[in-house]
Amino acid sequence: VLSKLPNVSNSIFSTMTALANEHGAINLSQGFPDFDCSPKLIDLTQTYMKKGLNQYAPMPGVLQLREKIAEMVEKQQHAIYHPDKEITITAGATQAIFTAIASIIRPDDEVICFDPCYDSYAPAIDLCGGMVKTVSLLPNSFNINWDDVKKVFSHKTKLIIINTPHNPTSATLTDADMKQLIKLTQGTDIFIISDEVYDKVVFDGKKHISVASYPELRERSFVISSFGKMFHITGWKIGYCLAPEKLTVEFRKVHQYLVFSVNTPVQYALADFLMDESEYLLLSKFFQEKRDFFVNALRSTPFEILPASGSYFLLANYDKISDKGDLDFTKELTVNYGVATIPLSVFYKNRLDRHYIRFCFAKKHETLEKAVENLARIK
Amino acid sequence: VLSKLPNVSNSIFSTMTALANEHGAINLSQGFPDFDCSPKLIDLTQTYMKKGLNQYAPMPGVLQLREKIAEMVEKQQHAIYHPDKEITITAGATQAIFTAIASIIRPDDEVICFDPCYDSYAPAIDLCGGMVKTVSLLPNSFNINWDDVKKVFSHKTKLIIINTPHNPTSATLTDADMKQLIKLTQGTDIFIISDEVYDKVVFDGKKHISVASYPELRERSFVISSFGKMFHITGWKIGYCLAPEKLTVEFRKVHQYLVFSVNTPVQYALADFLMDESEYLLLSKFFQEKRDFFVNALRSTPFEILPASGSYFLLANYDKISDKGDLDFTKELTVNYGVATIPLSVFYKNRLDRHYIRFCFAKKHETLEKAVENLARIK
Ligand SMILES: CSCCC(=O)C(=O)O
Ligand SMILES: CSCCC(=O)C(=O)O
Repeated sequence: VLSKLPNVSNSIFSTMTALANEHGAINLSQGFPDFDCSPKLIDLTQTYMKKGLNQYAPMPGVLQLREKIAEMVEKQQHAIYHPDKEITITAGATQAIFTAIASIIRPDDEVICFDPCYDSYAPAIDLCGGMVKTVSLLPNSFNINWDDVKKVFSHKTKLIIINTPHNPTSATLTDADMKQLIKLTQGTDIFIISDEVYDKVVFDGKKHISVASYPELRERSFVISSFGKMFHITGWKIGYCLAPEKLTVEFRKVHQYLVFSVNTPVQYALADFLMDESEYLLLSKFFQEKRDFFVNALRSTPFEILPASGSYFLLANYDKISDKGDLDFTKELTVNYGVATIPLSVFYKNRLDRHYIRFCFAKKHETLEKAVENLARIK
Repeated sequence: VLSKLPNVSNSIFSTMTALANEHGAINLSQGFPDFDCSPKLIDLTQTYMKKGLNQYAPMPGVLQLREKIAEMVEKQQHAIYHPDKEITITAGATQAIFTAIASIIRPDDEVICFDPCYDSYAPAIDLCGGMVKTVSLLPNSFNINWDDVKKVFSHKTKLIIINTPHNPTSATLTDADMKQLIKLTQGTDIFIISDEVYDKVVFDGKKHISVASYPELRERSFVISSFGKMFHITGWKIGYCLAPEKLTVEFRKVHQYLVFSVNTPVQYALADFLMDESEYLLLSKFFQEKRDFFVNALRSTPFEILPASGSYFLLANYDKISDKGDLDFTKELTVNYGVATIPLSVFYKNRLDRHYIRFCFAKKHETLEKAVENLARIK
């Protein structure tokens, strides 16, 4: 066989966005906003392009941006990361996750992933010859039962990948979770990748709980986040990885030969833009309003909505509407009702189908309103 | 050992650029221009950002850009690539090379690389568990002796990586080389990565000879190029990979989980910009003038300059100046004479040191002039 990834097909995000475009459906599938980023950010990028900052950035990223990230992380997570030795700018969080995995996973290493989880982890692990060991999230809350995690530990366990706020379920990890994770991994050589791309989007007055804030975890963790999700620029492909020096050294060895560096003028622009704290502190409120508006409107439909505590996704059960599989159901919803969503089964290792779909509510009120109008026509 | 790449240290490009900056030296080391890109390209990018095209591009790239690339490749190489099925936009050529390697190399596969060669190939192969088999380029011309290539063939040979115009030696492959490559690989399952990032920079009236133009090679090849090198925007990190459908399918499986997509507004801007053929057809002339100016000026120095037939690099021997190793010599040149270059030994698998250094001449005339003034002080 030629293929190293025989089970990988077109990503569901590409598929559903294409289907939405084809049928003129409202696209609540792939996770991106339908409103725009700050014009200031565009102007800043333009300014730095015009200043002639258009050649290779330093391999780990523009220092000014790394310094601003260090300040932000210190303020928000009370964690100190050295801008020069512990922060690397990446071409989005996906590249950061891939790079972290590639920098530590060797053939036969075991990696603990939760089920469901974001769809890029397993193929990246596969490519490195690693073995995915899945632990099911609790069926209704999508919380973690740490005893189940303990059960899959072996002498081959090399890495645990957590994700908070969680895509696709919107669950968030708590201080108690972090303490369990410390208990489980202390004294071991197990590394952690903490995918925190929605760290700025946590609801109902809760604070984002980051692995970065726990010294015992921090020492063994890659903490990954995304400016794409933070500043409504998913198409600019820029994120970052925080890791202690010894892990950053390994991360950069791969990064250097995988992409070398990241868009220079965008990095300078973000460094300036990050100075304005209010821009990101208001994000949770901004998205919570969208969540509340959407959830409220969805009451007029037969969907059963699950609570969403972070990220810009929410899950809905459609048992009252159809007994079709979720792949078919989302297609039908797109074609017949003009609303594209993501079937939850694609995030499960064995494509477990519990009749859930994922809505992205990072959309204008009018978009959400129209989507609900369409969905309300379902009998 | 933690490290999967124990032999990888900081890239020589980072090291020399940092040293140049530290000592206020003229930076002829890392391959980037010190003049600016077209203001039109900046304006176009700004226009698309303002139009709100700031979210995820399609995974394989913006279709308009892929169509423009197909047109360009058809005009220039008389090769037909299907925009939708055979062209993928990447975050620079480095990411394309890494992705192509990762999509086909499995543990114990052998990969033929030439010695010297660009420094990202071997670590990418290492990471995938592949074995690098090196074939020395001919010592003076840096041409390929294809009989030597045949000698390292084995039943494990999976891939050959060629590079024309060649970095760091400036050599270019000919039609005769391509015919040899066809003869050697026909009827085998051996794949080819052809790194053609300097395809627009070929001197003395020669035409760039691309693997894409040979149907027998095209079917088994990833052909990689770079807008960074073409349009003086190395810091925007954008390139592309041409490959027949069955290879593109595998390439995209990795690409999708490695980076997913590439900067959206930049892709739209480049799609418009590529319409203006004159912009790229004049590049060879533009850089040839720089080469000629620089080579001529260097006559006042004790360096022995090798002929350069493509790319924006040239090699110089310093036997008449020093018997230091090339790492020490380039440091001394930076610190004492204010000119940063790259020691050739870093491009050799076993760090072979023949007292050559690499100059990047993608610089303003005044920069090259000043550099030569400094170098002329050497006795
Ligand atoms: C990289 S495309 C997917 C975007 C995203 O995070 C999601 O929709 O889950
Ligand atoms: C990715 S930095 C190196 C740039 C380059 O192509 C070179 O200097 O050889």
